[in-house]
Order: sequence, then structure tokens, then C-alpha cells
Amino acid sequence: MDINLPITLQEVEQAFDAYEKALVGNDVSRLDQLFWNDANTLRYGATENLVGYDEIRAFRLQRPAANLVRTVTSRHVTTFGTDFAVANITFTKAGETRVGRQTQTWVKFADGWHVVAAHVSWMDGK
Amino acid sequence: MDINLPITLQEVEQAFDAYEKALVGNDVSRLDQLFWNDANTLRYGATENLVGYDEIRAFRLQRPAANLVRTVTSRHVTTFGTDFAVANITFTKAGETRVGRQTQTWVKFADGWHVVAAHVSWMDGK
Repeated sequence: MDINLPITLQEVEQAFDAYEKALVGNDVSRLDQLFWNDANTLRYGATENLVGYDEIRAFRLQRPAANLVRTVTSRHVTTFGTDFAVANITFTKAGETRVGRQTQTWVKFADGWHVVAAHVSWMDGK
Repeated sequence: MDINLPITLQEVEQAFDAYEKALVGNDVSRLDQLFWNDANTLRYGATENLVGYDEIRAFRLQRPAANLVRTVTSRHVTTFGTDFAVANITFTKAGETRVGRQTQTWVKFADGWHVVAAHVSWMDGK
């Protein structure tokens, strides 16, 4: 198992950058494109648990576009072989005192890299 | 990319069951064994962000063994090819009104399946 092959790591870092840019810019169609279009795709958000691409897409369409900007405070991308990766960040956001965390699992399909599972949460301060 | 090949899915379901059993039983050595022994392994817990196998191991050793029992309320395991998988659950726990979520990314190495990234959180009620 090859860990962090330079070309693979570069691909995933670029896909991750594209996702982050689309997120803060609320580019919903680009976000949709970056998620795997499948009933098995899953996203646990700070305030919702979404199962399947359709639920994730519907959520994005109704989400207010305000206050999406966040500051990434740590970033760890690790690739396994040529087709699999995890991307983890911590972040802060205006108006929120808690630390945010985001985990994404990426898979390379015939049409490129897609997020197959994501989990976003605020860390408990207790 | 083969999704949910029966034999691969069975392997990961069994690994996941072993993890859950070890967690509620606080079998720390088994939990350690199921995580990838590497500096890139990462675990975001409800109250902590741990980077690297050593930090995860140290956390488990000092964690109180009480109140680890939880009830799994939904479970989704998806495998990609023969060596990659994601396992997502929601759960409830005594004394906690919020919904718990756990995401694990599993990779099959020469010595078997290991968790390479995990994220556990409570969903905000707001």
C-alpha cells in the first residue's frame, strides 16, 4: 500500500481546494459535482444527518448562503494507493467559539475524485 | 470500482463489529490494534482532536472506563474495491439527549483492516 504518492496527494489536495473554494462561495453545483452521486453517499453535518446524494443536494439548495466563510486552522490529507484518501481539517468561524472539524473520505472514480462520506461537527468545550 | 463486493463488505462489517465490542468493553489493546499504527492516523472525538496513533493511544489509556455503552440507531457500511471502506453510525447514550454520529474510514493493509481516520460528534440540536 503506497501512502501519499506525490501525484495522488497532489490530485486530492487540488480536489480539496476546489471543494473549500466552492463551499465558501456557495457554488452549489460545484459542491454537488464533488460529491459521489450515489445513494450510499453520506454527510453528517453540524445540525443534520444526511443519507444519500439526493438528501445532501436538497440540503445545499435550501441552506442560507450567509456566513459560510471559515478559517482552516489545521489540514491533514493522506492518500492510500492511487484511488483513496482522507482529508481532515479543523476550522474556526465568526460568531462560533467552538472548534470546527471536518472529515472527508475521497475515492477516485472513472470521472475523477469524489467525496463518498463527510462529517462536520463542533467540538464540545466540556 | 466495485462497490460493496460481498466478501469485502463482510470483512469490514466484522471488523466494525469487533471495534464496537472492544469500545463498549473498553478493550484498549484491541482498539489500539484496530487503528492504523501511523503518525497519519487521526481521530476527532466529541471533546478532543487527536493526530497520530500515539495521541489516540494515550487518550484511550487515560479515558474513564465508565459510561461507554451506546445504542447504535443506524449503520451504513460501504466498501470500494477490496481495500477501502467507510462505516457510519448514529447512536444514543444514557445521559445525553443529543444524537451521536461516528464516521470511520477503513483501509486493508497486509496485516488486515485498520481505521485510518475517525470522527465522533454530537449533533447540535439548534
